[in-house]
Amino acid sequence: MSTDPFVVVGGDAAGLSAASKFARTTADRETIVFERGRWVSYAHCGTPYFVKGEVENLTDLLSLSPEDAAERGIDLRREHEVVAVDTDAQVVTVDGPDGTFDQPYGDLLVGTGARARTEPVDGFHLDGVFKLHGLDDAGAIRAFLMDPETATVEGLGGGEYLDEERAARYLSMDPPESVAIIGGGFVGVEMAEAFSSFDIDVHLFQRSGRVLKAFGEAVGETVESHLGEQGVSLHLGEPVERLRGSDGTLEGVVCSERELDVDAVLVGIGLKPNVELVSEQVELGDSGAIATDEYGQTNVDNVYAAGDCAEMVNTVTRRPTWVPLGLPANRAGRAIGQTVAGRPEPVGEVAETAMVKAFDLECGRSGLIDLDEAREAGFDPVSKTITAGSRSGYYPGAAETTVTLVADSDSGRLLGGSIVGEDRAAVRIDIIATALAAKLTVEEFERLDLGYAPPFSPVWDPVLTAAKVLRGSIE
Amino acid sequence: MSTDPFVVVGGDAAGLSAASKFARTTADRETIVFERGRWVSYAHCGTPYFVKGEVENLTDLLSLSPEDAAERGIDLRREHEVVAVDTDAQVVTVDGPDGTFDQPYGDLLVGTGARARTEPVDGFHLDGVFKLHGLDDAGAIRAFLMDPETATVEGLGGGEYLDEERAARYLSMDPPESVAIIGGGFVGVEMAEAFSSFDIDVHLFQRSGRVLKAFGEAVGETVESHLGEQGVSLHLGEPVERLRGSDGTLEGVVCSERELDVDAVLVGIGLKPNVELVSEQVELGDSGAIATDEYGQTNVDNVYAAGDCAEMVNTVTRRPTWVPLGLPANRAGRAIGQTVAGRPEPVGEVAETAMVKAFDLECGRSGLIDLDEAREAGFDPVSKTITAGSRSGYYPGAAETTVTLVADSDSGRLLGGSIVGEDRAAVRIDIIATALAAKLTVEEFERLDLGYAPPFSPVWDPVLTAAKVLRGSIE
Repeated sequence: MSTDPFVVVGGDAAGLSAASKFARTTADRETIVFERGRWVSYAHCGTPYFVKGEVENLTDLLSLSPEDAAERGIDLRREHEVVAVDTDAQVVTVDGPDGTFDQPYGDLLVGTGARARTEPVDGFHLDGVFKLHGLDDAGAIRAFLMDPETATVEGLGGGEYLDEERAARYLSMDPPESVAIIGGGFVGVEMAEAFSSFDIDVHLFQRSGRVLKAFGEAVGETVESHLGEQGVSLHLGEPVERLRGSDGTLEGVVCSERELDVDAVLVGIGLKPNVELVSEQVELGDSGAIATDEYGQTNVDNVYAAGDCAEMVNTVTRRPTWVPLGLPANRAGRAIGQTVAGRPEPVGEVAETAMVKAFDLECGRSGLIDLDEAREAGFDPVSKTITAGSRSGYYPGAAETTVTLVADSDSGRLLGGSIVGEDRAAVRIDIIATALAAKLTVEEFERLDLGYAPPFSPVWDPVLTAAKVLRGSIE
Repeated sequence: MSTDPFVVVGGDAAGLSAASKFARTTADRETIVFERGRWVSYAHCGTPYFVKGEVENLTDLLSLSPEDAAERGIDLRREHEVVAVDTDAQVVTVDGPDGTFDQPYGDLLVGTGARARTEPVDGFHLDGVFKLHGLDDAGAIRAFLMDPETATVEGLGGGEYLDEERAARYLSMDPPESVAIIGGGFVGVEMAEAFSSFDIDVHLFQRSGRVLKAFGEAVGETVESHLGEQGVSLHLGEPVERLRGSDGTLEGVVCSERELDVDAVLVGIGLKPNVELVSEQVELGDSGAIATDEYGQTNVDNVYAAGDCAEMVNTVTRRPTWVPLGLPANRAGRAIGQTVAGRPEPVGEVAETAMVKAFDLECGRSGLIDLDEAREAGFDPVSKTITAGSRSGYYPGAAETTVTLVADSDSGRLLGGSIVGEDRAAVRIDIIATALAAKLTVEEFERLDLGYAPPFSPVWDPVLTAAKVLRGSIE
């Protein structure tokens, strides 16, 4: 085994999980992490709640400070960008504050993450137009929303990490009275809630006719009607063609049929894996992300990839898939750290399990929900949606909970599901995720011995009721 | 197949689930349910919340009214007690309001339920001493707690079903200023909460040193400290020897070391299956409940048993077990109704999954938690307990969540677990219950692709953190 360092490109979830695990178990090899930015190991998913003000300081979103990393024995170099990788010589070239240098590696983990897509929206460069990817974006948006008379850049709690110039510029501007969110996915829905907590008009544009498309129709419909009740103006099936501005400042959004004046725009139309650094050296998958094996290794010896830049195997379809989510990144990183340390550990699979909060609604999804996707994966899917109470009907606080389950009608195997409701709905998706990992049939699922207590669940939990109905339709 | 009626003894969860399923699918055979009491199909588990006042009317606790049953094609006869069963002649003898008669059956379901144990407590006959098993008990306790100046028996919302004489007698008495609960299981803990919502002193006596013994040590400890914070006086390891009274009215409880004056006593020391009706005709299991096969059939042809009087197979140990809980009763009843109708359906297994609310705490348990029991079942158990946040640490409302997981150190298989915490803890037990049904190893469990969103779960859900720690201790 090499005695050269374990080199990690990217100091976020996957990279620092791997580095931590490796450094903890391996005393005789260096662990070096190169991060091109100033922030490391921060909670992407927490940024909407920072903008909303429920999280006070930007630094509250750090899972691991540079000091923590040092204590764990990690040589963490921020503002160091890896600009080239030579997989034959096993060397990376690094641009740092003190110049460019070569760093040999014994093993390399590519954890370059993903970036927010902005390109289809013409006018993204205008002042008042944002994406939400990283803490500097979050800081700038909150600065824009706050009252310049009373708020300060220091009040953002970004410490030494924050892009203060950008934040200060937005803080000095008049707070927006209206915002258009482009994209009705996770970021769009969470930011609709965040913006609404300020007293501004919130418009949500979604090119397709449905928000939270990955969560399926039943969740999307329920969330749309809830967003409406919360005062969000929905513009579904209405693609934004471009952003209009003058003197470099946003003035409005332009759709095919009409224009809408707004003071701010948030673009949340998805992510794109950062693969450019290694796209000539390692194989990419069909998704465009880096192809990996069950240990997270690329097709090149000693080169691993994990997190938002890499593919993983889908639990249900058994095919490589690209799922830029937090737990898989952490899990794969940790496994690779252990594998490189000499104790091979599979990175595991992904069921694309996800949860999202939409104001008072809790939403969850796992596995295959879209019937076309299920057919394309070789299944003969059948799906049922039910609505049932979250608690015994007589117990106060029972909330309507809508569950969709999808199964393969040939084998009876459960393929996926979604859930939405106001009372403990999201956590229930984990029951479905567990059943998918175990490849349970609907019949087996229906017979699960789940818990029952009036304050928490009816006798038949809504997920079991859905299974009963779905099974009835298969047989 | 017989054309004689499907006869059900007992009109509660198992019995009426079976009758409903059978009547719905079988047009040419009668469905007759004999219930010796006036109440049918009521939610046992809801009674503490009726006493507490969170449920307004006793009749709110009915899942199926006699009228509903009739509409489903069930011939429901209340106040009809089956007093003898002749399994050779396939006839039951019934005592009803109009005399005694014989009723032939094609198939018979024994759903006689269980009764609350009271016998170890001398003095149970005294006024002011209660068990909580059934709606008349619940009505009497609430009547006792209410102000006789303003409350009425009609206000209990018991309709035609209530034992009004008993309720009226307790309503006319001075409300208690103190209560001793004997037994720290489900009923004891739930009733501690119910009594505390009235302004009275609540004492909880538990013979063993621990409340909620079935939930394991970590849950018990957490609940005890919470009960204390809520003002409940705990008397652990202090067995009540007898109840003291004069003129037929309770005056206090007597322990070995001392006495305590109280105005009311609730005895909640467990249940006992009602098997006397058929104990000579069908085989009983070691638990004392009726032995059944995977279709809920006893050792006698055409005689089934389900619910609180019957055994089921334990998911983890594969042994017959007696678990008087709501979902297994409903599930087994429904399956038997379908089997008798000609489409055999297994009753399923039980993992003894249970949830309970203790004031602000949510508790759950599933599978084997007690290490001695696990050893006795042939495993080599190892157990770990962790405490982690219920949400991302920076998100408001994250609550300490304590998870215990137990695994077999030879096979790595997960054997059971428990959970306690204030934020969505109970529902998380269903993840463990699902994993037990699927016979997952700790390693597989650790790799589950569960959901993550800051408001609902940290990146690694507490159950995954527990799995990581437990796996580390096995390898």
